[in-house]
Amino acid sequence: MQRIAYPGVAGSYTAEAAATLYPDAELYSAGTFAEVFADVRDGKADAGVLPIENSLAGLVVETWDLVSDGSLPICGEAVLHIPHCLGVLPGTTLDAVTDVYSHPVALQQCRVFLNGRFEQHGVSTTSDAARNVAEGGDRTRAAIGSPIAMRTYGLEVLVEDISDHVENFTRFIAVRKGAPLPYADGVAWRTALRVITGHKPGALHDAIEPFRYHGVNMVSLHSRPIPGEPWRYQFAVDVDGHPSEDAVARALGDVERRSALLVVLGTYPAAVRP
Amino acid sequence: MQRIAYPGVAGSYTAEAAATLYPDAELYSAGTFAEVFADVRDGKADAGVLPIENSLAGLVVETWDLVSDGSLPICGEAVLHIPHCLGVLPGTTLDAVTDVYSHPVALQQCRVFLNGRFEQHGVSTTSDAARNVAEGGDRTRAAIGSPIAMRTYGLEVLVEDISDHVENFTRFIAVRKGAPLPYADGVAWRTALRVITGHKPGALHDAIEPFRYHGVNMVSLHSRPIPGEPWRYQFAVDVDGHPSEDAVARALGDVERRSALLVVLGTYPAAVRP
Repeated sequence: MQRIAYPGVAGSYTAEAAATLYPDAELYSAGTFAEVFADVRDGKADAGVLPIENSLAGLVVETWDLVSDGSLPICGEAVLHIPHCLGVLPGTTLDAVTDVYSHPVALQQCRVFLNGRFEQHGVSTTSDAARNVAEGGDRTRAAIGSPIAMRTYGLEVLVEDISDHVENFTRFIAVRKGAPLPYADGVAWRTALRVITGHKPGALHDAIEPFRYHGVNMVSLHSRPIPGEPWRYQFAVDVDGHPSEDAVARALGDVERRSALLVVLGTYPAAVRP
Repeated sequence: MQRIAYPGVAGSYTAEAAATLYPDAELYSAGTFAEVFADVRDGKADAGVLPIENSLAGLVVETWDLVSDGSLPICGEAVLHIPHCLGVLPGTTLDAVTDVYSHPVALQQCRVFLNGRFEQHGVSTTSDAARNVAEGGDRTRAAIGSPIAMRTYGLEVLVEDISDHVENFTRFIAVRKGAPLPYADGVAWRTALRVITGHKPGALHDAIEPFRYHGVNMVSLHSRPIPGEPWRYQFAVDVDGHPSEDAVARALGDVERRSALLVVLGTYPAAVRP
């Protein structure tokens, strides 16, 4: 049986995404995001599942920074609806709550609800937040996370669906060791790229022009700073298609010639967007 | 005398940036990022200063989301070197520290130093972290922030310069009420834009092409999700020049025709990059 690593603890959104991608596998928590990567690299896990992008907060930079060297190719994705709720020790009222714990991205997604009323504490995952509140036994504390996480740790859902927008989705990726997935027919392929542009004015425009020229659809583009090179940027680009398809292959060849660095971070069947 | 609002408490990097931009003004803390905006909008402050971008962590999304409607134009910028340090109650040793408090972005910037050894707590600003540790009187707690913040709250700098990269800079902006600054000679102008592209494949490429065509240098480009429209993106674009200059005016006209929305978020004298 395949072993699949995810970060954080049971009951997290990422554990749910791992179950969606690998319904017949043994799933286990490897700890931090970096530990998930290490387990896959060391062969302790066959694949690892991590959040990569949220429809409100944007790129999950910690995951992209890990995946951006291309050493573990992306081999799959899953998209989940994220209905955040406020969880408390059973019987606690909202008046009693002074401190709210969650992942910093989740706190940011509930800005309207939080509205400066509570002291906010960032922890590593939403399910860690639920566990901390459950184990702390302190009625001034509440956690933001999924209803599943609250149930898992015996918390009560005090307020449902507290995200600023109901259309709150998170995209997760799976990474594994070895070569990118080979082409197969009948699959809506998507390919993740890392592009570092040259220093000249117009460099970004020139670097992405070949996608347009060869009719390759650019699904998303995120800029990230380059550590150690202030004010220069690299880009996370997702395109439709597989690197073995003619148009994509030609576009990638042109992009490579026009940029300082191009890395294919993986190719995977696109998930259905809910 | 002008009154300038900044978020957080005295001793923060943002307070330092406000003093750099407005050396002769009265500076005061307005509370949260949103409260700085509200004070400027209500006329309680002549201008507000907020962090907008960090060379490692990228865009400060909370600030950009506030500035992105263009109701308070950007009128200035300052760039500061950010030497994070670990601050503790005087006489505390590193062995005693179990919990580290800071802004989530600062925690992310010190990932190598932290290395999973400490429980991390995100608070709203680095100087709030220093104040919490100083007032808490608990030797298991440490704060990450500037040497100035540590001095302000009577903490001792236990470890200096703990950022992952020494080239760690933050860019701050000033916002005020009224029209964007008028053109003046002898100033290196920079203009901040918000662009929402159309839905077609190639839309981003088409939207930014006029900058290249009219010889306008694109300094940076950051994508942000559009709240309520999952998987569609808007872009924060900074270009060299002032909207009154011919080339910029022509480029903006073309960009506007090719995109769903173009908002000029302000124009300001570019700060010298350290």
